[in-house]
Amino acid sequence: MSKVLSSGSTIGILGGGQLGQMLSMAAARLGFKTHIFEPSANPPASNVSSGFTQAEYDDYDKLKKFASSVDVVTYEFENIPTGALDIIEKECEIFPSREALKISQDRLLEKKFINKLGFKTASFCEVSSQEGLIFALENLGTPSILKTRRFGYDGKGQVKLGATSNPKEIWESLGEKELILEGFVDFSHEISVIGSRSKDGQISCFDPGENVHKDGILRTTTVPANLTTQQKTDAVLITAKILESLNYIGVIGVEFFVANSTLIINEFAPRVHNSGHWTQNGCTVDQFEQHIRAIAGWNLGNGERHCDVIMENLIGDQINKTNDLIADGSVSLHLYGKVDIKPGRKMGHFNRIIK
Amino acid sequence: MSKVLSSGSTIGILGGGQLGQMLSMAAARLGFKTHIFEPSANPPASNVSSGFTQAEYDDYDKLKKFASSVDVVTYEFENIPTGALDIIEKECEIFPSREALKISQDRLLEKKFINKLGFKTASFCEVSSQEGLIFALENLGTPSILKTRRFGYDGKGQVKLGATSNPKEIWESLGEKELILEGFVDFSHEISVIGSRSKDGQISCFDPGENVHKDGILRTTTVPANLTTQQKTDAVLITAKILESLNYIGVIGVEFFVANSTLIINEFAPRVHNSGHWTQNGCTVDQFEQHIRAIAGWNLGNGERHCDVIMENLIGDQINKTNDLIADGSVSLHLYGKVDIKPGRKMGHFNRIIK
Repeated sequence: MSKVLSSGSTIGILGGGQLGQMLSMAAARLGFKTHIFEPSANPPASNVSSGFTQAEYDDYDKLKKFASSVDVVTYEFENIPTGALDIIEKECEIFPSREALKISQDRLLEKKFINKLGFKTASFCEVSSQEGLIFALENLGTPSILKTRRFGYDGKGQVKLGATSNPKEIWESLGEKELILEGFVDFSHEISVIGSRSKDGQISCFDPGENVHKDGILRTTTVPANLTTQQKTDAVLITAKILESLNYIGVIGVEFFVANSTLIINEFAPRVHNSGHWTQNGCTVDQFEQHIRAIAGWNLGNGERHCDVIMENLIGDQINKTNDLIADGSVSLHLYGKVDIKPGRKMGHFNRIIK
Repeated sequence: MSKVLSSGSTIGILGGGQLGQMLSMAAARLGFKTHIFEPSANPPASNVSSGFTQAEYDDYDKLKKFASSVDVVTYEFENIPTGALDIIEKECEIFPSREALKISQDRLLEKKFINKLGFKTASFCEVSSQEGLIFALENLGTPSILKTRRFGYDGKGQVKLGATSNPKEIWESLGEKELILEGFVDFSHEISVIGSRSKDGQISCFDPGENVHKDGILRTTTVPANLTTQQKTDAVLITAKILESLNYIGVIGVEFFVANSTLIINEFAPRVHNSGHWTQNGCTVDQFEQHIRAIAGWNLGNGERHCDVIMENLIGDQINKTNDLIADGSVSLHLYGKVDIKPGRKMGHFNRIIK
């Protein structure tokens, strides 16, 4: 059993984006200080943290100094280089664990792990050569999706293959050795469960949210999701089983496809999740506080939902809708303070409470 | 009409306590940066701000530098020395205005202002000498309360006078020249309204809360307050009238006594208010965000209450209840991260949503 942090301790966060920012504010609400580690200048989280180290993940001196100055380390994204974790681990505990991180970093390991637990994923084939791709296509047919095993997010690092796709061209264009081909899932809609597990094994899951993606990026999450009572229960139980199997500490986001009334797991992220932002206005304790409570060794909070909510992301130039949303006044706005507007960049989100 | 600040601008806050901290987080949620000015080291707000100047209010160089580095200045407490405001004003706008500040800083001016608007206060007499105290006591009788005109908070700077009180002793012990004697108000309970007014005159008031004080310090606020519909309307209309009369910009906290079904105004504070903390969990837009929106020249948010809430302060060693509250898990905890526990010191608060 690892230590319980008292209010006043410092939480180190790898990554200074909006998730780090909201984690930092949740920590501050509980009386913690935070220290952000992030390669880029002026990240959103650095405006609400007591410490900020701007350095690359291969700057081991800075990493060591960072890790030795905090009481626990967590992260806002899963693509942290292994070398960085090796350094941190010598100074300080990291939650969620490296095991969870390792599995979620690799689509192949992740799917094998989920299947081993007895849960469904899309059918898949490992692809590490042009011949392998041809073989996989023969097995899974088209349409199917070729993805990089690692470092994909928001639809990046994936390409959809159809009947006329040329395996040779695609293999050469992707320029990537470690791939996975995923069979097409004919789903009606997508949902996710934000689960959390404390150091003493307590588990709490927020109500499943229904997600709409466009161009691979989450656009809206609506709670309650369109699910039968049985499906809702199953989604929560599956999430709980994943948390237990990994001996997980912190918040996890598990994404599902709903296909012919069956729940198929798409992927999970070992961190707070965009599809959990609705909890900021729908629950007494939101996903960010739940994560901080878990990694601090505290009891989890009550994640009960007290209203229906729609969360909508502001992507790229959708940030220009801000003036209308300010004038509207009835939504809870969360703007990340990012200066540069880029296509696909998450600039903010808003929650609308539905009576 | 003064300027509208865009997300990314910097808001200067005088005072780095818990109110400054929560203002700073509300600002960050809207994409603003904040800069805290505060004489003491490591104040709560400095952990969630991008800038922090530790300096006294008579350090005019630091004040000038602070004011010239931000886009607007606001404050978390009303007892700001006039000289400091003179310096700031040359560099930057201050909201709420100096007029509101001046009136609320002085119990005598405040009561005269309220009476002039046609609203009730306790009966009162200015006291500036021992003879004046005797005269005032003859007029108002006992019990009555002798208060300093300025710099009082949380019951500090006041003494209750009874039939056996000795005016000479009391005058000598208080060692204060500018006093006010207030007649006793036989009230059944206390309420407050947190109101806000935007730069273009839009007004929004949160539902009145019912307050319980002990030893002059707020202990709990409960919404809805025990009021008739008419009283609730009156409390809101009185607050709106005060806001309009002052051409006010920002959030104000107006405290009332309810005596024989009559609303008697106790005092107002030209800032976010402890009795408005329930809005953090009861409304889509809370008092802190409402204040930031107002001083930034934005439209006010919708302050509608979506549930019943009890807010409870953690005063002094009540902070030791924290472990029980963590274990409970069903309350929204707000811990200020103050290291030293002192009697009467506000260490945190929690909101409990009531179904």
